[in-house]
Amino acid sequence: MTDFSATKARFHLPDGVIYLDGNSLGPLPLGAQERMASVMQDEWGEMLITGWNKAGWMDQPTRVGDRIARLIGAQPGHVVMGDTLSIKVYQALASAVAMNPGRKVILSDSGNFPSDLYMAEGLIRFLGQGHELRVVAPEEVEDNITDEVAVTLITEVDYRTGRMHDMKALTAKAHANGVITVWDLAHTAGATPVDLVGADADFAVGCTYKYLNGGPGAPAFIYVNPRHADAALPALSGWLGHDAPFAFEQSYRPGPGIERMRVGTPPVLALAALDAALAIWDMTDMQAVRARSLELTERFIAGVEAACPMLTLITPRDGARRGSQVSFEFADGYAAIQALIARGVIGDFRAPDIMRFGFTPLYIDESDVDAATDIIADVMTNRLWDKPEYKTRAKVT
Amino acid sequence: MTDFSATKARFHLPDGVIYLDGNSLGPLPLGAQERMASVMQDEWGEMLITGWNKAGWMDQPTRVGDRIARLIGAQPGHVVMGDTLSIKVYQALASAVAMNPGRKVILSDSGNFPSDLYMAEGLIRFLGQGHELRVVAPEEVEDNITDEVAVTLITEVDYRTGRMHDMKALTAKAHANGVITVWDLAHTAGATPVDLVGADADFAVGCTYKYLNGGPGAPAFIYVNPRHADAALPALSGWLGHDAPFAFEQSYRPGPGIERMRVGTPPVLALAALDAALAIWDMTDMQAVRARSLELTERFIAGVEAACPMLTLITPRDGARRGSQVSFEFADGYAAIQALIARGVIGDFRAPDIMRFGFTPLYIDESDVDAATDIIADVMTNRLWDKPEYKTRAKVT
Repeated sequence: MTDFSATKARFHLPDGVIYLDGNSLGPLPLGAQERMASVMQDEWGEMLITGWNKAGWMDQPTRVGDRIARLIGAQPGHVVMGDTLSIKVYQALASAVAMNPGRKVILSDSGNFPSDLYMAEGLIRFLGQGHELRVVAPEEVEDNITDEVAVTLITEVDYRTGRMHDMKALTAKAHANGVITVWDLAHTAGATPVDLVGADADFAVGCTYKYLNGGPGAPAFIYVNPRHADAALPALSGWLGHDAPFAFEQSYRPGPGIERMRVGTPPVLALAALDAALAIWDMTDMQAVRARSLELTERFIAGVEAACPMLTLITPRDGARRGSQVSFEFADGYAAIQALIARGVIGDFRAPDIMRFGFTPLYIDESDVDAATDIIADVMTNRLWDKPEYKTRAKVT
Repeated sequence: MTDFSATKARFHLPDGVIYLDGNSLGPLPLGAQERMASVMQDEWGEMLITGWNKAGWMDQPTRVGDRIARLIGAQPGHVVMGDTLSIKVYQALASAVAMNPGRKVILSDSGNFPSDLYMAEGLIRFLGQGHELRVVAPEEVEDNITDEVAVTLITEVDYRTGRMHDMKALTAKAHANGVITVWDLAHTAGATPVDLVGADADFAVGCTYKYLNGGPGAPAFIYVNPRHADAALPALSGWLGHDAPFAFEQSYRPGPGIERMRVGTPPVLALAALDAALAIWDMTDMQAVRARSLELTERFIAGVEAACPMLTLITPRDGARRGSQVSFEFADGYAAIQALIARGVIGDFRAPDIMRFGFTPLYIDESDVDAATDIIADVMTNRLWDKPEYKTRAKVT
């Protein structure tokens, strides 16, 4: 039985704020500050270059990867950290495309995060071999998995609606059709249980600054199915993915398994903060978090729908079909979100008209949900959002 | 007139250590710790997601890039931070190759850092269009710049010997032959003055954890000549390089100029540490640092050569032809470096037999050089390196 008041106590949450945006950037774990200070002073400061061996910096990308493996149903030793999610998407997609050379279609959906689609576009243009990025509606992905498709590139949970794909069913259909799967777990890792091994997923990638609370711009992760790990050829063949990085050979020889998905020098400081953030997960497990997430999202949906008939729910009502966020459509959604932020309820806006709220049991509880619901009801019922200062768009929305 | 004792006071240098490895990992700037604590607590902790606007995180990659631009002779607004040097090499090379579609040769030299060669290999294999990576001896680069070559990929200062290429002359010859240049400044930025504008370099990339003291795994930078900046097509076309990232359009439209070389979410914490490290450069300029570097390296060469006839200098004697490091060949170099580290003189070893020492005027002075020279003389003359414990190779050398 997880004590969620104990996990909540491990975060710094500003006074007067109900933070329903942990699906975009998780809050500061108290342990991350301490760890960072220690790594900077005791490791970088005192050990200097010898920290690569003495402090284990060189193994950090797989050591931290193992912590994430536990949360996404991967085997230890098959997840490695580094770079950003966009880079990891490119890396996975490049390897996957090369594994299916006779086919030219990369299948994705319009609910995928745009950067995934952009990275695929760039890869296709750069390759110049006539590949096609086929983008269908989320509901149409299954029907479009045919023997024409080389690779599927799908984000398991839709960043706008919170709708969740059925990873197991889609992967099975993909394999039945000779298709390689690349799963983006940006809105799943730390939000819902993932079973990469059970689904037999081929590649998976994700970021760590959302539900995993690694901090702004925290490093990404990549998983490669052990079946492919020693065969996948890395397009981004950097020295730390080499079989013997410190032999300084002139030609690339890929390292064993997931090691070859390393590229450049690991981001030691950022990984230290992330590692401390991940330690909080030792206090719970994904099943407990998932059960709690469903309670919180159901309570929120019921409360907001009862009070705010002007908001249209676009997240699936069926808990089994959604991630850990709740989204409503509202024409003046941008202004409404600004009015809420001004009153301490932090959600976010996604173009063109989506108000998005994330639920993160590690630090959000029923009292937060109820207080947020009251404030949303007040803002919406009394049109408190209808002011010019809430309608001026900031650079980052 | 730079007060180098004042810059030295801005670093944490462990007691009993003479650190001649700042060419591999710079030491901890005191300001970096303070800045990191503040960014974690006051920005991430208190502002949460609103930090992207309120704390200016979104503009951080170009703001920090401008600090580096000043050190490498680039115009403000033409350097952007992110990812690792290996990724930046790929990015520059992919754009450069696409600008010269009729040619198939990528010219580099055997003194280039292996990761640059590996990234080129991966790119060539992935492209599958018959490109050739032609690796010649450093001294033969100039003669090999012909109208057959698409792109040169050259690290200005050789990581082993410290030998420096003539950027201006090679770039001029490249342009006379219709060749695009990609310069890796890993061992130049913060070590010697660079004049990208004067040389009319096409692309330049570099890391920031060496002479720029950004910390282990600090983010890399990329420069694109303004002449190409709005034409270069990014192969790594991530959302933050999009013209309107927060419009969440389904298709990629590259942003203006250097903005398109952004890929994923910026590494906010690491960039904060780097920004604080770069503030130290406001106390000096590259001309003063270069003059001091030449004094220190000359003093070191003279002292070591006088005392250690068994060491063979492989760094150019002509100051104008070397970067800010001094390297000696010695068959038992690995053991010798371990023996030196055990006595507080930190240099490093590069396979197969190179003892390497970096000189960084921001925090190394004559007394350090003299003390290090005495210890090296003792270790070499009395064969203090000849012990089994110094011969066991660590994972990272």
